[in-house]
Amino acid sequence: MKAKYDVYQLLDAKKKGLELTRPQIKWFIDQYTQGLIQDYHVSAFLMAAFINGLNSEETASLTDAMLESGAQLKFKGQNVIDKHSTGGIGDKASFILAPIAAAAGVKVPMIAGRGLGHTGGTVDKVEAIRGFKTDLNLTQFSELLNKNGVVLIGQTPEIAPADRLIYALRDVTATIDSIPLITASIMSKKLAEGANGIVFDIKVGSGAFMKTKSDAKKLALSLMQTAKRFKKGSAALLTDMDQPLGHFVGHSHELIESIETLKGQGPKDLALLSIELAAHMIFLAKKAKTLDLARDKAISTITDGSALKKFRELIDAQGGDSKVIDNYSLLPQAKAKTVVRAPKSGYLESFQNEKIGHLLIDLGGGRRTKTDKIDFAVAFEFHRKKGDQLKKGDALLTIHHHPEQKNVADRISKEMVTEVIKLSSKKIKPSQLIIETIA
Amino acid sequence: MKAKYDVYQLLDAKKKGLELTRPQIKWFIDQYTQGLIQDYHVSAFLMAAFINGLNSEETASLTDAMLESGAQLKFKGQNVIDKHSTGGIGDKASFILAPIAAAAGVKVPMIAGRGLGHTGGTVDKVEAIRGFKTDLNLTQFSELLNKNGVVLIGQTPEIAPADRLIYALRDVTATIDSIPLITASIMSKKLAEGANGIVFDIKVGSGAFMKTKSDAKKLALSLMQTAKRFKKGSAALLTDMDQPLGHFVGHSHELIESIETLKGQGPKDLALLSIELAAHMIFLAKKAKTLDLARDKAISTITDGSALKKFRELIDAQGGDSKVIDNYSLLPQAKAKTVVRAPKSGYLESFQNEKIGHLLIDLGGGRRTKTDKIDFAVAFEFHRKKGDQLKKGDALLTIHHHPEQKNVADRISKEMVTEVIKLSSKKIKPSQLIIETIA
Repeated sequence: MKAKYDVYQLLDAKKKGLELTRPQIKWFIDQYTQGLIQDYHVSAFLMAAFINGLNSEETASLTDAMLESGAQLKFKGQNVIDKHSTGGIGDKASFILAPIAAAAGVKVPMIAGRGLGHTGGTVDKVEAIRGFKTDLNLTQFSELLNKNGVVLIGQTPEIAPADRLIYALRDVTATIDSIPLITASIMSKKLAEGANGIVFDIKVGSGAFMKTKSDAKKLALSLMQTAKRFKKGSAALLTDMDQPLGHFVGHSHELIESIETLKGQGPKDLALLSIELAAHMIFLAKKAKTLDLARDKAISTITDGSALKKFRELIDAQGGDSKVIDNYSLLPQAKAKTVVRAPKSGYLESFQNEKIGHLLIDLGGGRRTKTDKIDFAVAFEFHRKKGDQLKKGDALLTIHHHPEQKNVADRISKEMVTEVIKLSSKKIKPSQLIIETIA
Repeated sequence: MKAKYDVYQLLDAKKKGLELTRPQIKWFIDQYTQGLIQDYHVSAFLMAAFINGLNSEETASLTDAMLESGAQLKFKGQNVIDKHSTGGIGDKASFILAPIAAAAGVKVPMIAGRGLGHTGGTVDKVEAIRGFKTDLNLTQFSELLNKNGVVLIGQTPEIAPADRLIYALRDVTATIDSIPLITASIMSKKLAEGANGIVFDIKVGSGAFMKTKSDAKKLALSLMQTAKRFKKGSAALLTDMDQPLGHFVGHSHELIESIETLKGQGPKDLALLSIELAAHMIFLAKKAKTLDLARDKAISTITDGSALKKFRELIDAQGGDSKVIDNYSLLPQAKAKTVVRAPKSGYLESFQNEKIGHLLIDLGGGRRTKTDKIDFAVAFEFHRKKGDQLKKGDALLTIHHHPEQKNVADRISKEMVTEVIKLSSKKIKPSQLIIETIA
């Protein structure tokens, strides 16, 4: 049979910056998913798409083609709302906003990632809870969502397999940070999960994909435009990733910090972000008439304990030991502590967030390769935020490590004050957490 | 061992249009040749290089890296001069200019290609001579060059293996027609052959890579600039490929036409082009003080029979039956003829050269896939040139085919007057064969 299109002609067109049609893109992705065109064809396409761009119509076509490469869940009602974060250091907001939104009547279908590179993964963090199963199948996923209003699993091969193939190729060919390609990757998965609305948390700063506000906004608009083409409601928050979110970076400790936040005792920035994202989800799900009312509702789920109860239900439903909520010692925690102190007086000027992620990997709290085991017990606990005034010798952070890791901890201590945390003699403005809201 | 460079970073840099350094390009090509980086990495690089370009320094570095991936021949003296043509319909000038130049004291090391796609290959054409061996090894190649001053073999795996790998990838990823990539591909092979100077024949027109004079000139300058960086003399002719060169297209008949030209009885355009290219070779080899004297010398090798004698030596040296020179019936020739006539009166306006190549393949005189056998016997014989005035019913061309191919020949006859040869009622200017000389 003669092929419908010719891969050479498609590459040639994209190379020249011409627009590809919906059927052409669909054919290209289908052929690749079926193994009928090769990695080297697709990497050439990705590079051409990266440099010459894809317009919004092409981005929607690519999203559609990747979405249709796998299973697509459908749920009744308008209240199925998901959140997507572009990922950052110390970002554990999912554990807080999902129970809040669910307690307010939103259904929250979470299919989350694992950590690779400098950022941790939601799925890895929740697995610090003994027994918690993240490898449920899509039937179990749907059942739990309908029953409890919240469910959290890892990536499954049934959802958008084309995205998995393409993402792996982008990862090794320097074609990750393309707004249209990121858009199609995120949206194909989110649409497949059956959400009727999506709230985007687009991180901006040294620890994020998007280093500038301008790029972050472009990505937000691209995602929202694509959501609209698929008749899904959406909102986007551009949020600061120039310093870790909350105090802790490390799996067990991030879970503890999340539970503390659900108990109303969490760090201010983490609580604020989680409530704000949950409020947008509640509003999109039409569980409140205004965003202000939605925010009030979100806060009340913390004060009345219903959000924490929902988190307990989530852990129980997925086989986890929910006693961790009352007894943090059930979570693995390293016994030794090394305190890193300010080498001089001044103001905290900046964090190198990406470096923090790499140092946690050095301590065992992350993966270098896909098959590495993560040590849930280790963590960094940052005591100060950007703009804080410090005296020489004040504690900047505590490294939670195993006693036998004293040498590594000492080396990391040095790097923390030379490469990660910068102090200034001049006064520094604190970061603005929520930079912009687009709704 | 830690890698010297990181393929991701190199791709990222080229994607952003940054310049790669000589050691980076060398490392990249070496890794690929050794199989340590993958096709998908290289196709992404080629696409980025295509769209963002490579500057002359990067082009030289790429040439060098591909050159150094294989064997490099060296010859004593300044008189080793090669010719490179970008290829065209009916182009058999190599068979004429090489003996002319060799008879004038130039050493001509020819490593030529086979036909694939719409243009024929020099190696295929010479194999129409019974016994002619083109698969000599590099030692035999060097010996024959030193002994006879002329030698003609096919591509060998020892010369620029990186180019072979990369060319195959360009061929399937729409990255062929890039001037820097073409330059590096041609120059890496030519430099490896040990030439001290190179004459370029850059074809312009419907049957050529370069469709416009402006692109052809860019390629010529890029090739000459790269030659200069390697301290090689060069000259370039931009020549017409809007109509077939000479009268014949087809393997045996093109050989016969070449021998006729060496006997002083060839078509005017073929003779002129061959002499002009040979003259530049003679001048570059310092076998004449001026280009005019070189041209006189070239012409005299035809009139005194020394060029034809050189061609006979070449055939004998490589095991071929040189009696073909005196007896064309020793070359396979198809017995049936179908004459195609002008459907109306007028002037010959244009040829679709690429289509001519494809029609010859339909007749068996070319390859669709690498393993196809070529029928040397079939040919098209064009009786008219662009600008010629014709009366309805005048013979335009003769198809030389096997009697059992009558149906194919009839179909081709129709396509020749509908799709290949266009007649105009207005007067048409003849083509200018040599469009520009850059020396």
